[in-house]
Amino acid sequence: MTADVRDAEGTRARLLATALRLFTEHGVEGTSLQMIADALGVTKAAVYYHFKAKDEITAAVTEPALRELETIVADAEAQRRRGAQVDHLLAGFVDLIVRHRALVALFSSDPGVARAIEHAAGDFEGLKERLVSVLVGPEPELRTTVAAHVALAGLALAGGAPYLAHLDDDTLRAELLDIGRRLLGRPRRAAR
Amino acid sequence: MTADVRDAEGTRARLLATALRLFTEHGVEGTSLQMIADALGVTKAAVYYHFKAKDEITAAVTEPALRELETIVADAEAQRRRGAQVDHLLAGFVDLIVRHRALVALFSSDPGVARAIEHAAGDFEGLKERLVSVLVGPEPELRTTVAAHVALAGLALAGGAPYLAHLDDDTLRAELLDIGRRLLGRPRRAAR
Repeated sequence: MTADVRDAEGTRARLLATALRLFTEHGVEGTSLQMIADALGVTKAAVYYHFKAKDEITAAVTEPALRELETIVADAEAQRRRGAQVDHLLAGFVDLIVRHRALVALFSSDPGVARAIEHAAGDFEGLKERLVSVLVGPEPELRTTVAAHVALAGLALAGGAPYLAHLDDDTLRAELLDIGRRLLGRPRRAAR
Repeated sequence: MTADVRDAEGTRARLLATALRLFTEHGVEGTSLQMIADALGVTKAAVYYHFKAKDEITAAVTEPALRELETIVADAEAQRRRGAQVDHLLAGFVDLIVRHRALVALFSSDPGVARAIEHAAGDFEGLKERLVSVLVGPEPELRTTVAAHVALAGLALAGGAPYLAHLDDDTLRAELLDIGRRLLGRPRRAAR
């Protein structure tokens, strides 16, 4: 890898981190390419070198978490036992939420991000359906279906809540996982 | 009450119901006063007679649910026993969500409504804090605090979810209440 390529990759990563921070402070709509350039201390042309429009930045900010979620769902689907499927999905989902807290908080409060995810994810609705399917199993009772929806929405929103932002990753992860397992009727200690 | 006043009140109620329906279909931003007038089959002047701007309509659409929520929180706070406080709040909150499903769904997906609620409610943050306080009690363990956040967010989002929109009010209310009680560690059958 040449120094130039390394620099470009470093700039891209810093650009995305800066964009996420500005999106959080000002919303996606309230953030311009110029603001991102200013915060990075580079010219707007340097931002244009990586991204032609804000939509591309929003998509790039959300993309890694979406790819991870796809992998988690696919890995969960590949487990043999139902219990292991639920355990794998819950653990992966909670871990993802905790590591991407800022993005999750933004997703919950900013429709610009929600729209970007729906575009970037290709088939986001399909992914959500697979996620629910793993949690509820092939012939779910109504109670399980409602619990799965409460769990997914509740864990994601609580994970991004300002009220719990002071918790460190390990603590928040353990608490959310415990609640998720309780909601989905899994035994107290994870098998994995 | 004169016929004129009765007509005006009827028009106002129909106007708010129509506005909520259009907000759901097109978002708050995508809905104009003219669209509301057209859907009602009245002139824009007739809409102006009741509301001078869309902001006023959004506030009026959300206001009844907010007033109800305030009453539920105050009634819960007035209960003597901790258990009764939690039971009262959970039952009232779930019932409110189920009866105002369309509004709840809109609140979860449209920042225009979220902003309107934050304006209309006077001190919406304060109300949310009182809500959480009733659920967690005076010296909450971390686990209870996280569970309360998962419950409030999860119940509201699941209640407004398109995926569960086919459930009738009684069924959805019973399922959500059961999950909420489980999350907050209340016994299976409500005392009230």
